[in-house]
Amino acid sequence: MATIGIDLGGTKLLAAVVTDGQPGRSAKEPTPAGGPAAVVEVVARIVQELGGADRVGLGTPGVVDHTKGVVGHAPNLVGWDDEVPLRDLLEQALPPGTDIRIDNDVNVGVLGEQSAGAARGRRDVLGVFAGTGVGGGLVLDGSLRRGPRGVTGEIGHVIVVPEGRTCGCGGAGHLEAYAGRAGIEAEARRRHGAGAHTKLVELAGDGKMKSGVIAKALAVDDALAVELIDEAVAALGTAIASAVTLVDVPTVVLGGGITEKLGAPFVARVDAAVRARVIPGVPVEVVAATLGDDAGVVGAASLFDIPGTRVRG
Amino acid sequence: MATIGIDLGGTKLLAAVVTDGQPGRSAKEPTPAGGPAAVVEVVARIVQELGGADRVGLGTPGVVDHTKGVVGHAPNLVGWDDEVPLRDLLEQALPPGTDIRIDNDVNVGVLGEQSAGAARGRRDVLGVFAGTGVGGGLVLDGSLRRGPRGVTGEIGHVIVVPEGRTCGCGGAGHLEAYAGRAGIEAEARRRHGAGAHTKLVELAGDGKMKSGVIAKALAVDDALAVELIDEAVAALGTAIASAVTLVDVPTVVLGGGITEKLGAPFVARVDAAVRARVIPGVPVEVVAATLGDDAGVVGAASLFDIPGTRVRG
Repeated sequence: MATIGIDLGGTKLLAAVVTDGQPGRSAKEPTPAGGPAAVVEVVARIVQELGGADRVGLGTPGVVDHTKGVVGHAPNLVGWDDEVPLRDLLEQALPPGTDIRIDNDVNVGVLGEQSAGAARGRRDVLGVFAGTGVGGGLVLDGSLRRGPRGVTGEIGHVIVVPEGRTCGCGGAGHLEAYAGRAGIEAEARRRHGAGAHTKLVELAGDGKMKSGVIAKALAVDDALAVELIDEAVAALGTAIASAVTLVDVPTVVLGGGITEKLGAPFVARVDAAVRARVIPGVPVEVVAATLGDDAGVVGAASLFDIPGTRVRG
Repeated sequence: MATIGIDLGGTKLLAAVVTDGQPGRSAKEPTPAGGPAAVVEVVARIVQELGGADRVGLGTPGVVDHTKGVVGHAPNLVGWDDEVPLRDLLEQALPPGTDIRIDNDVNVGVLGEQSAGAARGRRDVLGVFAGTGVGGGLVLDGSLRRGPRGVTGEIGHVIVVPEGRTCGCGGAGHLEAYAGRAGIEAEARRRHGAGAHTKLVELAGDGKMKSGVIAKALAVDDALAVELIDEAVAALGTAIASAVTLVDVPTVVLGGGITEKLGAPFVARVDAAVRARVIPGVPVEVVAATLGDDAGVVGAASLFDIPGTRVRG
């Protein structure tokens, strides 16, 4: 019984045969821009090229109704403007009898880290991924928490500073505005425009201020970079401590592009910031995600293994 | 099959025969100060006086391990300094075969509102009780979330203002310091000491600044009372919006002494504050708790009815 996990991203599509939480034979392609039909065609071809599978799990951006297999709003996928009945489309394109499960990409990433990564064997896990934005997910009592509207784990929109920086969603003081790459870039350019000197803008120029640029500026003690990362650490400390207090999760997995570029010292600082803010007597540990790009494919495959991820009946 | 629900409080003990979520014959006594043995004796007598029961559910202050039936740290109960194996003690005192379940009083209150009160029939509910402190609990997918350390729902210790007011637990900027009666009193006395004129201190004198005092001062537009309640509403809005975002709960039940004294206008203000802060496209409703003092006994009885509250096997 072969299981293939698929990580559908805005720019690339990763797939791998996954056995006991380990990715084996794999494939990687640019995500086709032709909308759902083009993506389904590529998925069907890749599944065949990887030797076929009885079970195909897929993580996708957007709000996903995992019981119906429908992808709602997915702004990061070109041409996915309406609701897409992705599971039905995949069922038509894959061999009859293939068991197909889909879920949100961040949920799937958290599941990957919980089933085979940094939080392996833990039953209560908060995953926080600081990349362009900040996404998150919750595994509670060993089951992925989805919630009635599919928005569980949106820690990026937890309020860390009342009336603080404006978030991409329009809200004020959300974590994402402090700890997401785009939020850090917007603030760096704003302060640079107001007269602050910084390597951040010098290195990025007019292009995107990538996580690597932030890491480089920090490595040479650029004052603005230091200040912005101090603020990101404090914001993550506040939001994660509140989440740990509210839901009682002893283990927090921290991943995403920013985390990967800033590395272990950043994770250790966030860990200290959380411990300093959580109520006394409640132990908590922040650990670095370990699966990197594999979290998506491993997590998608583990949609078949974890209690509470049953999709039918 | 009779079920008796018991609400063990720091000052009083309530008990009632509960049928289909409705309290019937009831009893009320001061909580005996003689420690666990005295409480168990009173419970056994009251159960007998109420006609006996096959099932006895009990809510108690403190950190409760519901699977073992053990009450840990319970500072509000006199003489309960060590771990108390309350279920075992009750089993010895009640007729053989009595099914006994115990849980934390706030969890039980949320369960009461979810099973027979303001959130009846809702599967995902956040309960927030603003009294002396601020307690809370979560029902997720129809089950009470307990968490591995029994601290789930501690929304009182969610951070609403970084480096803000000092909480009773020693933390900074926690909700409880802004929306709990004791936190409001401490801040009112501090500002009064710094020269602010206020009815709050005039009415309370050297005694406890009760919720009724806060309501009276607010009713005559006392400037400090207005300001402190504005801050309480904003703090509740911030903490609840973040919780709704993080865990995806569409229904929030607001109760507790402060809420009861300030009434519907206060609940409506908190509702508006939450809606203004939650991420766009995520509907949420804050409703007033309806069971009042009955929430404890009804919730304790409902420990037998709700999935996920199984205590053995």
